[in-house]
Amino acid sequence: MTDPRSTSPDFNFAIHARDGQARTGAIAMPRGTIRTPAFMPVGTAATVKAMYPEQVRELGADVVLGNTYHLMLRPGPERMERLGGLHKFMRWDGPILTDSGGFQVMSLSALRKIDEDGVTFRSHVDGSAHRMSPERSIEIQGLLGSDIQMQLDECVRLPAERPAIEKAMHLSLRWAERCRVAFGEQPGKALFGIVQGGDVPELRVESARALTDLGLKGYAIGGLAVGEPQAVMLAMIETVEPHLPADKPRYLMGVGTPDDLMQSVLRGIDMFDCVMPTRAGRHGLAYTRHGRINLRNARHAEDVRPLDEASDCPAARDYSRAYLHHLVRSDEILGMMLLTWNNLAYYQALMAGMRAAIAEGRLVDFVGETKEGWARAEAAEKA
Amino acid sequence: MTDPRSTSPDFNFAIHARDGQARTGAIAMPRGTIRTPAFMPVGTAATVKAMYPEQVRELGADVVLGNTYHLMLRPGPERMERLGGLHKFMRWDGPILTDSGGFQVMSLSALRKIDEDGVTFRSHVDGSAHRMSPERSIEIQGLLGSDIQMQLDECVRLPAERPAIEKAMHLSLRWAERCRVAFGEQPGKALFGIVQGGDVPELRVESARALTDLGLKGYAIGGLAVGEPQAVMLAMIETVEPHLPADKPRYLMGVGTPDDLMQSVLRGIDMFDCVMPTRAGRHGLAYTRHGRINLRNARHAEDVRPLDEASDCPAARDYSRAYLHHLVRSDEILGMMLLTWNNLAYYQALMAGMRAAIAEGRLVDFVGETKEGWARAEAAEKA
Repeated sequence: MTDPRSTSPDFNFAIHARDGQARTGAIAMPRGTIRTPAFMPVGTAATVKAMYPEQVRELGADVVLGNTYHLMLRPGPERMERLGGLHKFMRWDGPILTDSGGFQVMSLSALRKIDEDGVTFRSHVDGSAHRMSPERSIEIQGLLGSDIQMQLDECVRLPAERPAIEKAMHLSLRWAERCRVAFGEQPGKALFGIVQGGDVPELRVESARALTDLGLKGYAIGGLAVGEPQAVMLAMIETVEPHLPADKPRYLMGVGTPDDLMQSVLRGIDMFDCVMPTRAGRHGLAYTRHGRINLRNARHAEDVRPLDEASDCPAARDYSRAYLHHLVRSDEILGMMLLTWNNLAYYQALMAGMRAAIAEGRLVDFVGETKEGWARAEAAEKA
Repeated sequence: MTDPRSTSPDFNFAIHARDGQARTGAIAMPRGTIRTPAFMPVGTAATVKAMYPEQVRELGADVVLGNTYHLMLRPGPERMERLGGLHKFMRWDGPILTDSGGFQVMSLSALRKIDEDGVTFRSHVDGSAHRMSPERSIEIQGLLGSDIQMQLDECVRLPAERPAIEKAMHLSLRWAERCRVAFGEQPGKALFGIVQGGDVPELRVESARALTDLGLKGYAIGGLAVGEPQAVMLAMIETVEPHLPADKPRYLMGVGTPDDLMQSVLRGIDMFDCVMPTRAGRHGLAYTRHGRINLRNARHAEDVRPLDEASDCPAARDYSRAYLHHLVRSDEILGMMLLTWNNLAYYQALMAGMRAAIAEGRLVDFVGETKEGWARAEAAEKA
């Protein structure tokens, strides 16, 4: 089917098949092709934690995410440019998507102060003062060499009052416009807008429509998976989806669990990123065909079964749960390496399964079978 | 030359070539062949930290070391036996050498109390009480499935008074005899004795002679690299070497730096283990053809050169020093993975180089060239 190594001089999204609201296709770019729906492993500080870059690629990831906030503080965007850009630095030659830095400024930095022009904050690493504006965010993402760049936005943590949500959404729209001007015309690259509006449907619709008018190459839904129940998140996707252009990729930011991914693909989402598989892997949690397994639990101490005997991933197939339990309990780095590897393999296999199911018009069945697999294993454990 | 995958039903040490006091050869065992001089990566808690087992093997390691103290506390020897033994548990099918547990009891555990029969101590993990005797140490090493087992000994930290050194040496001799009885006859496996005697030449000679009388399959020199200068360590090797049987492997425990390895091989040592390459790798230090490099140092921040462009190891060859510097400064797991990989690759390449040089009768030249390479790089950095 689609070859992730094939390239296109332009940013070019093609939908190959639809199944309900779900779609499967490919984003062709100069650095490679992203098969959608796509899960993007998070490479926060120029590394997908506890993984060699070759492994990430071999698992089927076509694109990774870099965090502008982390990279602007260390090693710094100007230094990164002198070193030849993020791709060369981290040895990832496929497409890279970078966030705007705004989300982490809000969640990680100290003494942040937001105004119309941008945000002032102090580094969580060394306390140094920094200024981020829509223009500077685009400049930094350009210095990093990012292929898909995100507008600077203001993301409100839920629950929140409507005036705060509305104010942040309107500010985000004005910043989207400024980012579009700063980004200009870059044929092989893309700037994505971010729909905000919290859990207020009419604000979400207003945001989606206004962004669509900007004629961007892709649209993200931001400000979800920030504390609200899954049902609220899915309702917001359903609210926004009809107001986004059907021929542009839709990216749900920071989501989520395997079930979140399936439910969102069913509702028309094409791209995801989330720290869950990598972070969980560093904390003893495995995502598998048999559901989520907490390797720290004592019941695994003498379990010689692998996580998934049918997996192609050595971490899932070749190591006993007893050994993984031992590594996790002993805080061994190899435990983090193996569980991260397993989790990213499972996430990529899930995406590949959804892409194939959409092409065959059986995504609903695929989702049902996947959830049955989790439930069956859970029942067997309890029996 | 020697194939590390070839096996022998017995423990069989053959010397293929000599060069001065140095020798190169092979220890054939049921699980594989150990090419000597050999460096054994340390797999403390059933994992060579931050490495997949396949990587360790691919670097040319024929044998790894397991720590009895750590493994008896977690997962426990009886559990390990139920799980099929240490080889299966950690997915290492080559020979495994285990220490006796004595050294770590002394250095890590709390409330340890030594008497004629053994040592009582509390676990550093959970404070539980344990008892270790020569017989129990051999029993545990057997439960783990160890191929080369070490006698229980008492290791005195230097500097120490002669009476304390002498008393520990004599106790270690009595324990060697008890371990020999407990070990019995195991054709494909080996029990090694450990020469003690601190920095007192006549005690070292007495220990070596008495152990030789026990007719063991191999001999270790213990209680060195515990704080004394390199010259003292080398003098002790020179003192002991003539009193050990020439046809048995000689193992210098817990040593050392690349230079320590070369100086010791020149003096007739066949086997080494040390946490240095793995521990240093987790602390930002790289051992290379160009000497020891501290990646934390700011001068690497924009250095696009790899650690060693001529290395076969991807960690040494494919990643810039600037990237490694960034990973180390950011406490990224990938930094530990890459530097551990590089360091073990360098150690194994150094051993392979020494084996080849001994076979060609040019070990002194090899050592000189290696040290010149370090000095040249150091001079270039200062220029």
